[in-house]
Amino acid sequence: MSRTLQIDSDRSIRTLDQTRLPFERREIRLADAWQCREAIVSMAVRGAPLIGAVAAFGLALSLREDPSDAALARAHDWLASARPTAVNLAWALNRIVQAVAGLTLGERAEAAWRESVRLCDEDVACNEAIGAFGARLFLELPAAGAGRTIQVLTHCNAGRLATVDHGTALAPIYALQQRGVPVHVWVDETRPRNQGASLTAWELAEAGVAHTVIADNAGGLLMMRGEVDAVITGCDRVAANGDVANKIGTYLKALAAHDNRIPFWVACPVSTIDPTTADGRSIRIEERPADEVSHVTGWLDEGRIARVRVVPESSALANPAFDLTPARLVTALITERGVVAASRAGLQSIGLACERPSPHGTVVPRGRAPVVDPVSGAAP
Amino acid sequence: MSRTLQIDSDRSIRTLDQTRLPFERREIRLADAWQCREAIVSMAVRGAPLIGAVAAFGLALSLREDPSDAALARAHDWLASARPTAVNLAWALNRIVQAVAGLTLGERAEAAWRESVRLCDEDVACNEAIGAFGARLFLELPAAGAGRTIQVLTHCNAGRLATVDHGTALAPIYALQQRGVPVHVWVDETRPRNQGASLTAWELAEAGVAHTVIADNAGGLLMMRGEVDAVITGCDRVAANGDVANKIGTYLKALAAHDNRIPFWVACPVSTIDPTTADGRSIRIEERPADEVSHVTGWLDEGRIARVRVVPESSALANPAFDLTPARLVTALITERGVVAASRAGLQSIGLACERPSPHGTVVPRGRAPVVDPVSGAAP
Repeated sequence: MSRTLQIDSDRSIRTLDQTRLPFERREIRLADAWQCREAIVSMAVRGAPLIGAVAAFGLALSLREDPSDAALARAHDWLASARPTAVNLAWALNRIVQAVAGLTLGERAEAAWRESVRLCDEDVACNEAIGAFGARLFLELPAAGAGRTIQVLTHCNAGRLATVDHGTALAPIYALQQRGVPVHVWVDETRPRNQGASLTAWELAEAGVAHTVIADNAGGLLMMRGEVDAVITGCDRVAANGDVANKIGTYLKALAAHDNRIPFWVACPVSTIDPTTADGRSIRIEERPADEVSHVTGWLDEGRIARVRVVPESSALANPAFDLTPARLVTALITERGVVAASRAGLQSIGLACERPSPHGTVVPRGRAPVVDPVSGAAP
Repeated sequence: MSRTLQIDSDRSIRTLDQTRLPFERREIRLADAWQCREAIVSMAVRGAPLIGAVAAFGLALSLREDPSDAALARAHDWLASARPTAVNLAWALNRIVQAVAGLTLGERAEAAWRESVRLCDEDVACNEAIGAFGARLFLELPAAGAGRTIQVLTHCNAGRLATVDHGTALAPIYALQQRGVPVHVWVDETRPRNQGASLTAWELAEAGVAHTVIADNAGGLLMMRGEVDAVITGCDRVAANGDVANKIGTYLKALAAHDNRIPFWVACPVSTIDPTTADGRSIRIEERPADEVSHVTGWLDEGRIARVRVVPESSALANPAFDLTPARLVTALITERGVVAASRAGLQSIGLACERPSPHGTVVPRGRAPVVDPVSGAAP
């Protein structure tokens, strides 16, 4: 399978319009900053790492039009405002700004493009590392030891489609599949936008990974019944204390995992960790349009794609797009630098200087998770 | 508003086809046992108390055809098999069997019909009492004391439409509304069948109660933000130890309420409590058809009602219809006999002899909740 983001030339990129999946595989070409931002706003591209990559190319393309400092600042702010919650967007844009700092106006567009390409290659490498670290964790589960199929539950889409390639939460699943380890994924449909039913189910089917789509409401019962060995999600922002912002509903699954002593892992590149955000309460939660709740898109029996209204017009609607999972419910973070506790100490252990370091934090070597046991969640 | 179940004559009843709500208000007439069972199986009628009432009339109607002991036993078992989780179904059928025991064949049909009518009247009275007891609880909330709008979250539909009238979980809301107490309801859409978006939203709109429909995933964040003062649901079966079986997803909301120190109340008539079921693990959870997850029904823009597929055909599906909420997460049960702890002691206090009484249980007067504080959930 090819990468989610294709670089066609130094003037355009190509990707799938994810608002059309799983109904049709429609490619879109993005050839200027406006198209890149529009793709992010319309959610044709979504997923924290992919948003970052597309925004970087958008900024690079804007520099072809006008490489001045004023235009750079304007384009940066305009692209950064496309989505408020995921930190990768700001992080990627800042990388481009830094890459062109000190360059002549004539050098900027080309340098920004090269940096965007590098950022994509790094995303792929990060996700491969997340896959490798995560696969090790899964192989420590009792189910793996017993040779049983590993039962994983995931929420939303943190797969290939959310990144340049491999995914974050799904990277370990693909790594296990490559090694021939039997794995089955419970896919939360992820209302209201149904990214699980439409994107995760689609990409797992493409990859030949066994999976079952369930209503978001079902995960708690499955965990209580012993039918889930681990929960893994991606995330949009990790605060300095380890609190996680991710798709609305993630918190409920973390609570259920905790109540049933099941590991709850969050997979993310280090670029998703925001040491400047003190804790979850400081993260701005995007409120999205009401019609995402009131309307559902799908196939009619005759094959045509249609949108139906499922809520009476007389009812008010609310649609917060993300929620906050307190660090205490996160068994471990899986990053490209290793598996660490969702805590100041854990983040410090992979080289992230957080604003208010805990005096009790234990600094530990890369790739280890010392503060809690990453499988059992217990303190060692 | 008229009762959900209308008694037309001693030969037929009338109700709304709830599979057509909120799209159209279509009445159905049920004139024999087969039609009554079919209405339960197809979920034209649903909600534990309403299912019980319709089944009772079904059994009464079957006695018009054949009042023999053998036919009574056959009709009883056949009606009881319509839905497996709600205990009111078996309870209502047993009431009819007892009402005709010892009668001549010629007296049975008439006696069964009278008992069914009585059962409906009792349901209405029970729900009025639940409304009164529940309203008192709501008025003890800090929000009520401060004169703020009381923010309530509910899951699925435990309103008028789930009962003969008034509802269980919504009865206190209607009681508050009648007293002019400002109240707003967060309505979980309740995937996969959308009973919240289609039934609860519809009946709250009919009654003029302020409400907002949300994705099931949103409740945790709203609680964390302090935007929910209490959670109230109905239930399908309460076990002897206070464990609750209710619509899939209830457990997740109970976890979130517990994590945010918000009362989680379960409203139910005593007929929903099953002292013969030791605990939640003994309750059979109905697995419903996969197409309830894969397909969604709604209005097309042109007003026509249509069903769309939202999950690719390549994906497997699972659809457990109920989950289990452990008694430890239930702040109190609101019954027609009063507000009690979800525990053996609590059930004993309202006269329910449970199979394995706790030696430590405190027997308490009717209408009180001594084992936990019903608002704070704290032990006194």
